[in-house]
Amino acid sequence: MSAPAAVDQDRLWADLMALGALTEPERPYTRRAFSPLFAEGRALISERLRAAGLGVRIDAAGNLIGRLEGADPAAGVIALGSHSDTVPRGGRFDGVAGVIAAVEVARTIAESGGRPRHAIEVIDCLAEEPTDFGLSCVGSRGLCGALDAAMMEMTNPAGRTLGAALRDVGGDPDDLGAAIRSDLRAFLELHIEQGPVLEATRTAIGVVTSIVGIRRLEIGFTGEAAHAGTAPMDLRRDAGVAAAACMLEVRRKAEALAAEGEAYFVATVGIIQVEPGGSNVVPGRARLVIDARSSDPAMTQRFARHLDDFSAAAAAEFRVERTAFATLSDGPPAACDPRLQGVLTAATGRLGLSVRNIASGAGHDAAFLARICPAAMVFVPCLRGMSHTPDEWAEPDAVAAGAAVLLEAVRELDAVL
Amino acid sequence: MSAPAAVDQDRLWADLMALGALTEPERPYTRRAFSPLFAEGRALISERLRAAGLGVRIDAAGNLIGRLEGADPAAGVIALGSHSDTVPRGGRFDGVAGVIAAVEVARTIAESGGRPRHAIEVIDCLAEEPTDFGLSCVGSRGLCGALDAAMMEMTNPAGRTLGAALRDVGGDPDDLGAAIRSDLRAFLELHIEQGPVLEATRTAIGVVTSIVGIRRLEIGFTGEAAHAGTAPMDLRRDAGVAAAACMLEVRRKAEALAAEGEAYFVATVGIIQVEPGGSNVVPGRARLVIDARSSDPAMTQRFARHLDDFSAAAAAEFRVERTAFATLSDGPPAACDPRLQGVLTAATGRLGLSVRNIASGAGHDAAFLARICPAAMVFVPCLRGMSHTPDEWAEPDAVAAGAAVLLEAVRELDAVL
Repeated sequence: MSAPAAVDQDRLWADLMALGALTEPERPYTRRAFSPLFAEGRALISERLRAAGLGVRIDAAGNLIGRLEGADPAAGVIALGSHSDTVPRGGRFDGVAGVIAAVEVARTIAESGGRPRHAIEVIDCLAEEPTDFGLSCVGSRGLCGALDAAMMEMTNPAGRTLGAALRDVGGDPDDLGAAIRSDLRAFLELHIEQGPVLEATRTAIGVVTSIVGIRRLEIGFTGEAAHAGTAPMDLRRDAGVAAAACMLEVRRKAEALAAEGEAYFVATVGIIQVEPGGSNVVPGRARLVIDARSSDPAMTQRFARHLDDFSAAAAAEFRVERTAFATLSDGPPAACDPRLQGVLTAATGRLGLSVRNIASGAGHDAAFLARICPAAMVFVPCLRGMSHTPDEWAEPDAVAAGAAVLLEAVRELDAVL
Repeated sequence: MSAPAAVDQDRLWADLMALGALTEPERPYTRRAFSPLFAEGRALISERLRAAGLGVRIDAAGNLIGRLEGADPAAGVIALGSHSDTVPRGGRFDGVAGVIAAVEVARTIAESGGRPRHAIEVIDCLAEEPTDFGLSCVGSRGLCGALDAAMMEMTNPAGRTLGAALRDVGGDPDDLGAAIRSDLRAFLELHIEQGPVLEATRTAIGVVTSIVGIRRLEIGFTGEAAHAGTAPMDLRRDAGVAAAACMLEVRRKAEALAAEGEAYFVATVGIIQVEPGGSNVVPGRARLVIDARSSDPAMTQRFARHLDDFSAAAAAEFRVERTAFATLSDGPPAACDPRLQGVLTAATGRLGLSVRNIASGAGHDAAFLARICPAAMVFVPCLRGMSHTPDEWAEPDAVAAGAAVLLEAVRELDAVL
């Protein structure tokens, strides 16, 4: 590579806002994977990549890939990227910031005149957000061989298969193996934090240590619905109270595990349902869904065991049956590559930016890429940790600082890998 | 009146089952006030009343009233009734048995050929069960002047006002005073016990001594919805956890008050709602509805004060705002009229039925009627005390025995009042 050129904050921001403008007008910001607006977004990204001299293709898993060839064909690829699809009524930064930052890094390198030793790829991973086919991270699964023929048969409410949708965006559901990569030497993903830590600590850059594993648990209780006036307190079989006790205990235990400081841990009860749900009826049934996330599977296991014991004891105390204690899903955590973390941290130092290590409580494409190559992530601060809402916001200089770290890290990696 | 005729058990039972069949098919037995099914039920009741020669009207408070004119217009009215609406997934007897028993008593009198001195009214009180407007006993409140313009502005989750709903069932929210009665000389209500005492003691008839007071409280919390993965435990503003803590405390405090043994006390949380209600979103809002009942208003007041303090502390602990601590309704306990109790007890004796005095832990329309006229209640045994559940059950001869007591008492009252 030749002498350093810096990322262009105004250009980066203009592209980010241009992509944000491609939204369903009545519910900003919505650009769902597989939609016509999604195709418009990719056309914009492709145009920017081509203008910078990168070759553009769609792989079999539907990923949009821009490629700047390297000087040494045997050196392999340094890849950067994220996703350009959004949740319904989402924001303009989740995923998109990482794609546009990757574009900006690649074109800055292309414009610098020198030629990197490694090929540089910008990857817009297909459909990272949950789709109405029931699958998320479609493209990044494809890159690591975690997208299979059975998934192609998954259908959306309209009865369309994922395979058909994949074909329509340029993928090839009959040749998914072609998307699997063995030539990637590193994958770097920039993303907004989606949490409050960097803002609260006035830190410019978070270097992600790991991406949490997510376990979803369901607890069900069955007692006996009864008249709220005539059922004496000591004869009740109130399923709702058992559920409330567990909901409170999820909080208490999660606080305790997080306070241990050994690993990242959060747990949430976002769903509590009591039936029949009348103000004058003692609840006969109750259901909780618990979302527990940790960088350490052992901690999640301790939490689940504790909750198993606690909920069984709550059932006994309130004379109800615990009719369900089920694991709805259980994804393992993904560690970010230590060497890449070191390169990113060193890059922030050279740029004079504040930095801290941070675990990612949200899932990301990088978690799938980590299965096939060293992968790491850069977090940038966002307003009050808000995400998956139109209020999602990151400052122009915050996104540009993250892109600058990516650029610095790519230069370093191109030299040392 | 002419020579005694007896109630027709088969006819009474057939009407009761016909009304029970008018239910939401997917969740028997549900016939919510203001629903199309509720209107169907009232059409059935009206048809039976008209067939027996009674005049039928809807008063300003939405009560369905059938009237058999008396021989002496100055004598006033002996009224019988209960309510035909149900809780969600309720039973076929709560309320409905009292309405159909009243219909059966009135038509037996009408068919007997003689004319009573007093007018006899059958009153199907509107919306005795809690509505989603946050109010119960809408119709019986109206009869005693306890339904006011402010209540007409109460809204359901869809934003509709109670006044609009009242108008749709034939009431007149702009002329509520027209529903207030000064001509009632007695009100008698038959009801299933909704408790286990009569069944356990093999007693045919319970003569009610008093009806508990009921206070309904609403507690609302507002925190901040956040990503379940990225919001650290110590920075969360989880409204759901504050609600769960209060739900558990309602149980703890109610157990303690009931154990004091000074008065009857029960409290229940039958409704807990958390929003937005996704498994991966920290709840930003939560709402509880609490039902507290006691024979001693001072005990209810102690409970409410404790919950006020506790919920304020919970809001502080979990860094959320307590956006509501409201009394939705507050009905004092009601004593049943001693003279009417005596008439009912004497009637059971003449019919050769076993009888005992009993307090009602449930609220009833009779509690509001007691504000404007002597009121009393007949309880009949029900299976295992179950109520507000599809398993609610009373035997045909048990209901008919209660109706026979009502008929006997009405004949006595018509003579002596």
